[in-house]
Amino acid sequence: MPAIAYGGPDVAPENPSPDSVKLAESLILVEFVADLYPSSNILPADPVLRAKARFFIETVSSKFTPNWMEFATGNPEVTHATLLSSVDTIQDILPDGAEYAIGDQYTIADIAFTPFWARLNVLLQKGIGAYRVEEKKNFLTALDDPKYAKFNGYVQRLLERESFKSTFHEVRPLFFRSSLLS
Amino acid sequence: MPAIAYGGPDVAPENPSPDSVKLAESLILVEFVADLYPSSNILPADPVLRAKARFFIETVSSKFTPNWMEFATGNPEVTHATLLSSVDTIQDILPDGAEYAIGDQYTIADIAFTPFWARLNVLLQKGIGAYRVEEKKNFLTALDDPKYAKFNGYVQRLLERESFKSTFHEVRPLFFRSSLLS
Repeated sequence: MPAIAYGGPDVAPENPSPDSVKLAESLILVEFVADLYPSSNILPADPVLRAKARFFIETVSSKFTPNWMEFATGNPEVTHATLLSSVDTIQDILPDGAEYAIGDQYTIADIAFTPFWARLNVLLQKGIGAYRVEEKKNFLTALDDPKYAKFNGYVQRLLERESFKSTFHEVRPLFFRSSLLS
Repeated sequence: MPAIAYGGPDVAPENPSPDSVKLAESLILVEFVADLYPSSNILPADPVLRAKARFFIETVSSKFTPNWMEFATGNPEVTHATLLSSVDTIQDILPDGAEYAIGDQYTIADIAFTPFWARLNVLLQKGIGAYRVEEKKNFLTALDDPKYAKFNGYVQRLLERESFKSTFHEVRPLFFRSSLLS
């Protein structure tokens, strides 16, 4: 679980000061950063767009992430078809003809989804995880279908962003693996 | 799942207009109302307090609500002790000497917790639910212990608020029951 120490004296991260505020939970931290830096525009000012961003995140958290966790850890009940149904769910709520999750602006909705999709990619590309090889092949083949053009265009835009490329560590899933499989 | 039709022409709720925006998910709607009415102060402007409110809600959603659902539906693995441990978790993050979840101001954190606690109360008082009577008695007796004074003071303040009393329908859990037990 990611955590932030905010405020207080300037100390090394591994030695947080008792005078700083400790905050945890990745999605809460994403909103926190949006609140700290309103000019970043990662959370639009319009209440309707904010609700849409949060609904997208809720959909990812409840309909996508649990399935990819179970798929990666080899739950036999979560097949490539189950994982693909999660992709369907995401694609269904993506706006047509827009760059990102809730429109042309990159928001907390995209920020919340990107690492999960990126990690799944690395796991599949490097053959990490307890899923059957056949299931992985079936998933990737099915995802290649033109019917997933909207979703594939979207995730490609996510992974091509400089902010993502300069901060994502492919090796992290290798460490992640031991906890996934223990 | 609660939903809101926002904007568009003034029509009857049961006949929403295609011109209104449809938003769903109770916690997202709570944030939406806070965004629409910043002067309500149900979400403080301070980013740290906002994060604390969201962390409280996350704790309720992940550590309290699932247990009370399982308790009410008679899952034998969720005993009065399990439910009580959820109360412990909430009490642990309540600030000392403050009125509400993150301080003296009533916020979305309190709004998110109140209906769950109120419904549990009605279920227990009216003997609705699939739990064993013995488990209910054990829970209520344990909760009476002075060590829960902070928690009990907090929930009493929640249930005494005019806004709660004027909008809560005790009978709703009776309908809820059939879906709980089906």
